[in-house]
Formats: sequence, structure tokens, C-alpha cells
Amino acid sequence: MPFTSLALRLPATVPFVGPEAIERRLGVPFQARLGANESVFGPSPRVVEAMARAASESWAYGDPEHFALREAIAAHHGLHPDNIMVGEGIDGLFGLLAKLTLEPGDRAVTSLGAYPTFNYQVAGHGGSLDFVPYRDDREDIDALLDRAREKRTKLLYFANPDNPTGSWHESADVERLMRETPNDTLLVLDEAYSDLAPPSALPPIGRIQPNVLRFRTFSKAYGMAGVRVAYIVGAPETIAHFNKVRNHFGVSRMAQAGALAALADQGFLSETVARIVRARDRLAKIAGDAELRPLPSATNFVTIDCGRDGAFARKVLDGVLAERVFIRMPGVAPLDRMIRVTVGTDEQLELFAAALAKSLEKARRELG
Amino acid sequence: MPFTSLALRLPATVPFVGPEAIERRLGVPFQARLGANESVFGPSPRVVEAMARAASESWAYGDPEHFALREAIAAHHGLHPDNIMVGEGIDGLFGLLAKLTLEPGDRAVTSLGAYPTFNYQVAGHGGSLDFVPYRDDREDIDALLDRAREKRTKLLYFANPDNPTGSWHESADVERLMRETPNDTLLVLDEAYSDLAPPSALPPIGRIQPNVLRFRTFSKAYGMAGVRVAYIVGAPETIAHFNKVRNHFGVSRMAQAGALAALADQGFLSETVARIVRARDRLAKIAGDAELRPLPSATNFVTIDCGRDGAFARKVLDGVLAERVFIRMPGVAPLDRMIRVTVGTDEQLELFAAALAKSLEKARRELG
Repeated sequence: MPFTSLALRLPATVPFVGPEAIERRLGVPFQARLGANESVFGPSPRVVEAMARAASESWAYGDPEHFALREAIAAHHGLHPDNIMVGEGIDGLFGLLAKLTLEPGDRAVTSLGAYPTFNYQVAGHGGSLDFVPYRDDREDIDALLDRAREKRTKLLYFANPDNPTGSWHESADVERLMRETPNDTLLVLDEAYSDLAPPSALPPIGRIQPNVLRFRTFSKAYGMAGVRVAYIVGAPETIAHFNKVRNHFGVSRMAQAGALAALADQGFLSETVARIVRARDRLAKIAGDAELRPLPSATNFVTIDCGRDGAFARKVLDGVLAERVFIRMPGVAPLDRMIRVTVGTDEQLELFAAALAKSLEKARRELG
Repeated sequence: MPFTSLALRLPATVPFVGPEAIERRLGVPFQARLGANESVFGPSPRVVEAMARAASESWAYGDPEHFALREAIAAHHGLHPDNIMVGEGIDGLFGLLAKLTLEPGDRAVTSLGAYPTFNYQVAGHGGSLDFVPYRDDREDIDALLDRAREKRTKLLYFANPDNPTGSWHESADVERLMRETPNDTLLVLDEAYSDLAPPSALPPIGRIQPNVLRFRTFSKAYGMAGVRVAYIVGAPETIAHFNKVRNHFGVSRMAQAGALAALADQGFLSETVARIVRARDRLAKIAGDAELRPLPSATNFVTIDCGRDGAFARKVLDGVLAERVFIRMPGVAPLDRMIRVTVGTDEQLELFAAALAKSLEKARRELG
């Protein structure tokens, strides 16, 4: 069979097992879906309306140039449409990025336990991954830079705010990272959660640099995870390469209409952010009441340090799942002492609180 | 900058310029959109309803395993879900296929003037393309097989029915192609238009072979081009490789809901096919009345031989565009003596007939 040696060698791993697959395994549906960092506060009603309208126009391909959407995104940021590349979610854009930059043996550096789909795409193109440990449960800028220089990595992945810890760095530090990233390294600045971060964490969006790509999405604060639309902000000469390898008609007509409507409804975004912040506080309180330590979060989830080892946290997680509340946990030590809970409605958070109490009691009883 | 030498070398070509881009250039909207082989008869009202409903659930990611949809597709064909791989349109699946099979210098064979997005994806992965001429305006099975053997191509692309000619081969011939494709070559059987072909043209779908992948889509007869959902039928061991490199959440929640509803409404599909066949006949008559030769078609378009060279057909095309009727033409000789017109409503076809008459008169006057 004519597959490449790389394709034959790759494992059939999945970056994330979907909640539907877990439900099929458990045989019952979840009562609360708090594991995929989706926004239960949903997309704006105007987005739903725009997508429903676009549904009936879906006999026609979407605009492969994403002209109106790129114009709107550019206007939103005070940039030029040539600074914007739209794609099928950040994951899809990572696939194109890996394809454009990596040949077998090329290296990329990321943090140990950081976003797995970046790793999946790097591996899928034959790249080798270097991992730098988190430091005090945050990404370690200096160690990442050192590794990038030392190993001449083609990509440096940095999420701000970070998933799975929810942590963030202040703008001055991120700007230093941008400045000090070697010229031959591309800084992959994953800002999926930027709409939920304190403004002090975000370098000015107009600070364009040829070797920095900033990834933004409609999946998180805009509440459109199931729609699949994201974009890159970058220098036109860097962005332009994506046109050589992308799936031109890949962003659906509904997705383009929805993203346009989402951008136009900043009021809904502000309300959602306020609701997420309130729910984040509530989650932190639930964790504290259970004598666990919630990490500070600039995202739509709260990561909770269970205070012991990975086996304990895994047991806590399994107990919560058994109560039909979907949450996740980081897979790699030392982050695997934590569980990660997406914000939800008051009702959903109470379900989680009850599930957590029950699960903790069992875990403490069984593991002593 | 850390781009691969291939990425730097690739041209920034676009497989298809979208009608929106042509409209922006012309400064006026088209009156009829008959150039992209979309179905103006639209998706089923049940599909629109299902997608509109899914729009409000789009805060949640779609199922990355496409479980329900793969089950439904498998049931539709009498196959197992492991025979099915769902993706973001055939174009998206071609991207994954190229990634899985091609290393720089590997070869693929196709017909000269056939579907350009296949070529784009092969080139995007460093593959070299071999082109076999059409024979009597149909793909030449023996010549394709000869070239595949001679050049040891990893991929052999064959569309049945074909775009841009609208032609088809009978099942017995396609089965011979399947049988005679070398073991080390993967037969890429593009059946985007299969729902519009005479049943005698399609090998039994249960005829599974490890080195044959059959590509089907909801974009054409199902009228869902703007939704982006397609699938591959193949052997489980071949299909499984796609899980190593795909964009797991790439098929949106709305797309999955829409495709499920489309499959469930086979009555609408039959009606659409009947409408397309009637419109095809009308288009053939329009061509005949203009003293041009319509090619037999098993698709949702009719390709019309303008009877002279590429310059003449290009002039005819430009004249039709100037009348604000969007059509296309093959770009490569000898197919470039033709124009390609997608079926439309009666009203749209009359607009085309009038535009064609006017354009032909001008072209004949100017080119003698």
C-alpha cells in the first residue's frame, strides 16, 4: 500500500476523546458537559439567526476568500485584511502550519502537558517535539526560549492564556517572548482564550512581526465551538503562505455568516464574559469548599489542584464522570494532579459540586 | 523564516476563483450562478430545519467520531461504519490523502484538465503529477493504467462521472480499472456526481478493495455545497490511516446534523435528481439551438463544445459573464474549446440562453 513510512508509523491516537464517545461507553448521557471548554452560554441569538438563515443558502459554496469576514475581523482589530487568515478552527490552522513548516526531523518546542492537538499536528508531519516543564503551573518563557535557541526549533508554541492550567502571562513578558524568539523560529501564540483574559495580558494586536502568528477563535468566549471558525493574525508575507495549502471552501457558509454576526454583537460577548467570570468565581469557591486549590484562571475553565498525585486526581475525575458530569484532566505529571472544569450555568455547577463532594469522599476513603 | 523549501516554492494559486471574487471584480452581482456545479434546487427543507436547530446547539463541538453519521451512511450503503471516513468536503479529504501518501518526488496520475483541487493537494505535498490526455472527451482508462504502471504512481485519480466533461464510464469498465490498478497504487475514485449517474455506471458499493477509495459528497445532488461534508468508502485498514492526521472537530455540528437529515430524506433526493435531469435536457437544447454541441452528461452540469479553439470559447465565456451569468470553462486544451454550465431553474436557464445568444453573436462577429 502506498502510504508514507511516516503515515504507517504514526499511532492512531486521538488528541481528545469526545464526550459523546464517553457517553457511549458509559451507556448514559451526561447531565452536565463541563469538560471541553465550550461555552454553555451559547452563541449570540443573532449568530443563531444568521446561521439559520445561511442554512437555507447552503446550496452555494461559501466565499473561498472569506472576504467579508476578513474585512470585519480586520476592522475589529484595526488591521488590514491581509493580516488575517481564516480557517476551520485553530486545530485546522495548526494542521496547515505544520504542513508549511515541518519536514521529518524538524523540531518544535512546547510545554509538557500543553495543548495536545498542536503536538498531534507536529507529529503528523514528522516533526519532533521538545517539551519544557511548566514552572509554578505556568508556561516557562525563559526555558522555552532557551530550548528554541538550543535546538533551533522551527516552532515555539505558547498559549496565553494557557490550557490546561488557565494561567496567563502579562503583556510585557509576552512581548519579550515575541522579541526574543529567534528569527528562524515561528512563535505560535495561541490566544484562543484571549477574550477572557485581563487586557493587561495581551500584547497590542497591532504589534505585527513576521515570525509571530497569533491564533484567535470563535469557539470559546463567542460560544461557537461546534461551528469551526478561527483566524490567524500575522504579517501579510507570513499569512500568504497559508493560501498555498488550505482547503479553500472549508469554512462553511453558515460558519462565515455566524462569525460575522458574532463580531457585530460585542454586547453579547461582554455579557458572556461577565457570566463566565462569575461562574469562574463560583467554581473556585466550590473547589475551596472541598479543600482543594483552584488555580487562578483567565479562561472559561478552572483547573483545580487536587493536592496529591495523578492516581488520586484520576480517581476524583472518574468519580465525577460516574455522576454523569463531564470534566477532563491533564494527562501528564506534574499537571496530572489537577482536574479541569469548564464553567457552566449555576445549576450545572451545583451538579458538579455535588459530584465532586461524593467523588472526593470516595477517593479519600479508598486511597486513604 | 522557517517555512519548508516546498512551501516557499509553491505558487499561491487558487484551484477555483469563487464567483464572489468575480462579482467583486465586475462590480455587479451575478443574475444566475451556474458555474460552480452547486444545486440551485437546494438542500431538503428537512436539512435546513435540522441545521437551523443545530445552530442553536453550536456552543458544543460536534462529535469528532461522527458516530451517528457514519452509522447512517453505512446503513444507507449496507456497509459497516469502519468502511466510512467523514471529512470537510472531498477537497479536505484529498488534502489528508495527499498527506498520508505523498513524499516529495512521489507521483500521481490524473487526466489532463481534470479536477484541479486534486492536483493542488498533490502539489501541496510535493508530489509530481503525470497527466494523461482525455480520449474522445472522456477519461482514458487504459492510458491511465499504463501510466500508473510505468511511473509507479502512488495515486491514480479517476472521476466517474467526470468533471469538467460530464462524461461517465460503465460499471464494467470501472471495475476493470479497480481490478487492474497496481497494488502499490491507490485508486482515487471521485464519485462526487454518483447520485446523478445512471446506475449502470456505478460498481457495487460493497465491492471493497484495500487500494480503492471512493469519494462521495453531500455537495452536489444533496444540494449542500456550502455545508462541507463528504465521505470516503473504503477498506477499514485503509480508512483507518485517516484518523492519524485529520482535523477531528472539523465537521461542524450543523454539517453532521444536516447530512443525517439529508440521508433520511431520499424522497427529496429523487425529486432533485429528476429536476436536474430535466434541466440538463433543457440546457442541451439551448446549446443545440445555438448550433453548439452539448456533451452527454451524468452530472448536474452540461459541458458545451463551442466547436472552435480556446480563444473562441474564452470569448463566449466572457460574453456570458458580462451578461452577469456565472459559468466556467476548462482551462486546458483540448477541453478549453468548451464551456461548462451548471443546471438551474427555468428562469436561470433562460437568462443563460439569452446571454449565450448575445455572446455568440459577438464572438462570431469579432473572430470571424
